[in-house]
Amino acid sequence: MAVYTQIGAEDMAALVAEFDVGELVSAKGIAEGVSNSNWLLDTTGRDGKGARFILTMYEFRIELEDLPYFLSLLDHLAGRGCAVPRTIHDRAGALYRMRGDKALALIEFLPGVSVSEPTPAQARAVGTALAQMHLASADFAGSRENGMGLAEWQRLFDACGAEGLARIDPDLAGLVAEHMPRIAAQWPADLPRSVIHADLFPDNVLMLGDKVTGLIDFYFACNDIMAYDVAVTHAAWCFDGSGRSFDPAVSAALLEGYESVRPLLPEERAALPLLAQGAAMRFTSSRAYDWLNTPADALVVRKDPMAFARRLQFYAANPAIFDTNAFA
Amino acid sequence: MAVYTQIGAEDMAALVAEFDVGELVSAKGIAEGVSNSNWLLDTTGRDGKGARFILTMYEFRIELEDLPYFLSLLDHLAGRGCAVPRTIHDRAGALYRMRGDKALALIEFLPGVSVSEPTPAQARAVGTALAQMHLASADFAGSRENGMGLAEWQRLFDACGAEGLARIDPDLAGLVAEHMPRIAAQWPADLPRSVIHADLFPDNVLMLGDKVTGLIDFYFACNDIMAYDVAVTHAAWCFDGSGRSFDPAVSAALLEGYESVRPLLPEERAALPLLAQGAAMRFTSSRAYDWLNTPADALVVRKDPMAFARRLQFYAANPAIFDTNAFA
Repeated sequence: MAVYTQIGAEDMAALVAEFDVGELVSAKGIAEGVSNSNWLLDTTGRDGKGARFILTMYEFRIELEDLPYFLSLLDHLAGRGCAVPRTIHDRAGALYRMRGDKALALIEFLPGVSVSEPTPAQARAVGTALAQMHLASADFAGSRENGMGLAEWQRLFDACGAEGLARIDPDLAGLVAEHMPRIAAQWPADLPRSVIHADLFPDNVLMLGDKVTGLIDFYFACNDIMAYDVAVTHAAWCFDGSGRSFDPAVSAALLEGYESVRPLLPEERAALPLLAQGAAMRFTSSRAYDWLNTPADALVVRKDPMAFARRLQFYAANPAIFDTNAFA
Repeated sequence: MAVYTQIGAEDMAALVAEFDVGELVSAKGIAEGVSNSNWLLDTTGRDGKGARFILTMYEFRIELEDLPYFLSLLDHLAGRGCAVPRTIHDRAGALYRMRGDKALALIEFLPGVSVSEPTPAQARAVGTALAQMHLASADFAGSRENGMGLAEWQRLFDACGAEGLARIDPDLAGLVAEHMPRIAAQWPADLPRSVIHADLFPDNVLMLGDKVTGLIDFYFACNDIMAYDVAVTHAAWCFDGSGRSFDPAVSAALLEGYESVRPLLPEERAALPLLAQGAAMRFTSSRAYDWLNTPADALVVRKDPMAFARRLQFYAANPAIFDTNAFA
């Protein structure tokens, strides 16, 4: 939630001139992005009628070697009709440019807002868009391992330590000890895979009314189990912020939307309760680590790990919510 | 440099519906504003062709009673052809709306970027725009005292204390003691007055090339000495960020631009050296106070008070830079 780097107007105009997008008209630093800086740019456009872009400067975390995967994935998906922003190549055809030791990419701006209280109709649209993305990625050449898989959750919990977890909540260490080994032991090995978004929270979906206008922020995208992406999206959309209240209508609509494009196999459906517990565990682990390791003066709001620990408990106690026609 | 308050998409759409500007299409929190939160909004527009606005939520500092002055001033100046953004009135005609105990105003979006290394041509354009603003405000009915006048500088220095000033720089307390009484004693009482911007830094001017497209951020505007506003703008534009390097060509162009619209009276010209020392003292005082009173975890970057203490020393040592035709 910050702009870490200042770029003067003169430098910004020179940067924009490296792309065939017209001249710079406006540049506003926007309060989005935890590990990068973002600007909303207006230019005169190639046709003089104006155009808008997001300029992203990659500050931390994302390894430069992964950038071509993320940026060419956007091109690939946009080319197959998915609602994702295109990467604007520079005049030399490059996907990104370097400024000192930092990378800069120019991304198409898409209209839409991120809903905070999704309706079933909106969840249905998101499920549909997620399935379309999975299918459209079938012939994407890139490949990237999931850096936020089970081994990483364990590593993050270990780094927190029992004492650290206890500082977050007295029950958290016990919850991890109870569920983590079981989830790891039962994790499915042979479910269908594709490129997955792996972080499709409402914040990362632009909508106009009930229509998805853009899936954004693909910086956790990787090749992994499709049904796990469904589970992540489920955990992200079907609860209130605290994780205390589950919305069965949103849940049913999300799954219906997904299956309207790509019906789940029986073995995927059967794995959803476990995959959802895994999804909840994944965000519990990263939030717990960030909670303990975010300096008090950071420009980032810490997110409550227990909001996902509660989802974990809910999923463990209520596997039947994923039964076919559970709420039909 | 932050968005202090989150407004969900649903609430934002409902808010926009209170204005006759079409439907919400996009909302991005922007990293501007120290004492308020700002969003860049896109709507379908009244004509369906799209429109853009800045939505500002007033979080701190600005007293609600002053908002009508600031917001109606924008209307007044825009109506007289000044490059300032209009205030968009709501459907009931109100200049702002309340949301809980906070006020929200919708302001016209203007294109342009803020230069970081002004050229003489740009400084000339800014001087011209400043004089136009002064003249255009002649028949503005509102009136507001300068809350950042001499008494306030003294109050801020007193609040810092000698020990606080010494923590900033060993020479600062001596500098204040040397210059502050003299400036106060010699401060002119009868120079021409108007509405003044009082904070016209490059950050608060939008430009396209050498053209001013918008003067913005009028939240220090007040009724005070016109030549003092020239002095503030001079201190803001004619030095590098550290205050160590003065640019005589930018200085000459700024004054020429101003005088191309409103020639300074001989007594205004004669007062400029002292007014410029006052302008430098004003920003030294507020920066010193903020330096000592900004919590380490604040979302605001502290600005060096010494950058203006150096300007103060420069102005005190070089009154001749304001002589007519000093650089002609």
